[in-house]
Amino acid sequence: MRVSLKDVAEHAGVSIKTVSNVVNKYQHVTPAMRARVQEAIDELGYRPNLTARHLRKGRTGIIALAVPELGNPYFAELAGAVIDAAAEHDFTVLLDHTRGEREQEVLVSQGFRARVIDGLILSPLELEADDLLGREDDVPLVLLGERQYDLPYDHIAIDNVAAARTAVRHLIGRGRSRIAYLGARTDSANRPANLRLQGWREELTQAGIAAPDNLVGPVGGWNRWDGAKAMARMLDAGVRPDAVFAYNDLVAIGAMRVLHERGLRVPWDVAVVGFDDIAEGQFGAVTLTTVSPDKQAIARLAVASLLRSLEGAGEPEGRELAAEFRLVERESTLGRR
Amino acid sequence: MRVSLKDVAEHAGVSIKTVSNVVNKYQHVTPAMRARVQEAIDELGYRPNLTARHLRKGRTGIIALAVPELGNPYFAELAGAVIDAAAEHDFTVLLDHTRGEREQEVLVSQGFRARVIDGLILSPLELEADDLLGREDDVPLVLLGERQYDLPYDHIAIDNVAAARTAVRHLIGRGRSRIAYLGARTDSANRPANLRLQGWREELTQAGIAAPDNLVGPVGGWNRWDGAKAMARMLDAGVRPDAVFAYNDLVAIGAMRVLHERGLRVPWDVAVVGFDDIAEGQFGAVTLTTVSPDKQAIARLAVASLLRSLEGAGEPEGRELAAEFRLVERESTLGRR
Repeated sequence: MRVSLKDVAEHAGVSIKTVSNVVNKYQHVTPAMRARVQEAIDELGYRPNLTARHLRKGRTGIIALAVPELGNPYFAELAGAVIDAAAEHDFTVLLDHTRGEREQEVLVSQGFRARVIDGLILSPLELEADDLLGREDDVPLVLLGERQYDLPYDHIAIDNVAAARTAVRHLIGRGRSRIAYLGARTDSANRPANLRLQGWREELTQAGIAAPDNLVGPVGGWNRWDGAKAMARMLDAGVRPDAVFAYNDLVAIGAMRVLHERGLRVPWDVAVVGFDDIAEGQFGAVTLTTVSPDKQAIARLAVASLLRSLEGAGEPEGRELAAEFRLVERESTLGRR
Repeated sequence: MRVSLKDVAEHAGVSIKTVSNVVNKYQHVTPAMRARVQEAIDELGYRPNLTARHLRKGRTGIIALAVPELGNPYFAELAGAVIDAAAEHDFTVLLDHTRGEREQEVLVSQGFRARVIDGLILSPLELEADDLLGREDDVPLVLLGERQYDLPYDHIAIDNVAAARTAVRHLIGRGRSRIAYLGARTDSANRPANLRLQGWREELTQAGIAAPDNLVGPVGGWNRWDGAKAMARMLDAGVRPDAVFAYNDLVAIGAMRVLHERGLRVPWDVAVVGFDDIAEGQFGAVTLTTVSPDKQAIARLAVASLLRSLEGAGEPEGRELAAEFRLVERESTLGRR
C-alpha cells in the first residue's frame, strides 16, 4: 500500500501540516524538525506526489527543452545539466530536437504544445527575431545563445568574441602565425559562428598577424564529418595552416582525423583548439585543448529564469545573462607531457 | 491570424472533412486529392493542432523515454532515434534520465507522472523484476534491453551472447589468443554485461582458447574513465592481453587511451573491439571496430509497441522483440589500410 503523508506524520509524531511543509521545502521549518520528518520519510519510503503538488499551483510540472541535436554530445551534456537543474525544483523536462531547422524552431517557439508545459528553454540555430514577434503563446520562454533578438525574453550566453580571442591568443602564444578558423557559415544567421570568426579576426589583427580569407574554412554543418571535409578542402587547396581554431569540438575532432590521415602531427605540425569541452576531447591519441563554457551555470540560469517568470516576479525583461568560460589546455596545443 | 482547417478547405476547394482526412493521415484519400490539399496547406502555412487531435482521443500526445544517461552518446543517439520515430506518429517525447540508479528506475516505472504521458519506454540498468510487480500504473510500458523480467511487458533487445561471440570470433580470426573482456560487474544485476561476458567465455572455450579470470576486467561504471581505469589496473597487474573486447565503445575508448599512454600500439600490440557503434568511434587516430545494434529498429519497435497498447490491440503480452546487430570492422582490429 502506498505510504501517505498521514503515515509519515504518525511515524514522526508530528502534524500532517509539518510533513507537508518539509516535503514542499518551505523555509519556516527548524533543521531538527526537518531531520526528524526526513527520517520518517526515509524509513517508510514515502514518495511525495509531485504531480499533485504542481497541479495545485495550476502547473504541469514540465518544462520543455529544445536543442538542435542530441547526437552532438555538447547538447546531450547540456540537456543532462538542464534535467538535473530542473529536478532540483521538481520539474521534469520534455525534450525536443529541432535539427537546427528554422521551421522546427518556429513551431516550438510558437508553443504548439503550450497546454502541457510550464516553460520553454530554446537553443536556436537559425531562428530569426521576426519568428518570435508573432508569438501568441504566454508560456515563459528563455533562449540559450547570443543576443540576436531585441525581444522581451531572457537569453543566456557566454561572450563568444572574448572566448574566440582567448583561444587564438593561446595559439599565438604557442608561436603559431598561420591560424585557420574552421566553421564559417556564410549562408546562415548563426550568430555564435560569426562571433567566433570575428574574435579570430580581431585577435590576429591586434597581434599584427595576417587573417587572410583562405584561412577561413566554411562548413556545411557543425558535426565531425563537416570538420573533416572543411580541413581536407583547405589542405587540398594547398593552404597549410600551423594551427586551427574550430567552431566546436566536433569540427576540431573531424579536422584532427584528416590531419592524422595526411601525416600531419598535432600539435607539432598543426595545433588545434576546439570549443564546448565535450567529454570526448579528453580521450583519443591527442587530447583536445578547448574553450569550456560553464554548462551547469547555463542550465541553472535557464531554469531560474523560467521559475522567475512562473512566480510572476515581474514581466520578462529580455535580460542578458552571462555564463563563464575558461580555456582548458591539453595535448592538441601543448603536446604530450 | 491563425490559418484554420476551414481556410485550407476553401483554398483547395474541398470539404473540411477531406482536409481533416489528409491531416489525420487516413487511408481513404486519393493521392491526387492528398496532393491538392497539401498544396493548399503549404501555400497558407497551415499548422494542424496536434494537441487537440490527441486530446480528442483522450491522449496527451506525449510518451516518456527514460535512459540511464544522456552523457553517454549511445543513449543520446538512441533518444534521437526515438524522438524521430515518435514524431512520425505525432507524439513528442518526455525525456528522463535515471543515472542507472535503481531508485530512480523504480520511480519512473511506477508512473509517478502517469497523468501527463501516454506511454513509457524504459531502458533499465539496475531494475529488478520485483520492482515492476507492484506497478499500479496502467500507462503502457516497454523495456529496452535483455529479458530479465517474466512480466507482461514487451521488451526489445539484441542477442547479446551472439553479438559478443561475433566480436570475439573476429579477434580470434585476427590471430589473437589472449583476449580480455573489459566491463564485468559482479555487484550488479546488469544483464547485458553478464551476457557479453558469457559470450566471450563461450566463444573462447569453443575455439579451445583459455579464458582465465585475470583477463576479465571489472569496471565501476561504463564510461570512458571506467574503461581507462580497468585497462590500467590489468596492465599494472602484469597481465598483457593481445586483444580487448569491451562492454561498450566508451569503455573501449578509455582503454585505448591508456594503451596509447603506455606505448602499446592498437591494433598491432593490442586489438580492440567495442559495442554500440557511437559516432565517436569513426574518428580519432585509430577508428574503432564495434558491434553495431540497429538503433533505428530499436526505436521503431519501441514506439510501435506503445501504439499497439494504446490502440487496445490486445493486452501487453511480454513479447520478445529482437533488433539486429552487425560487426563494423575498423582500424582498431584491421590496422590502417
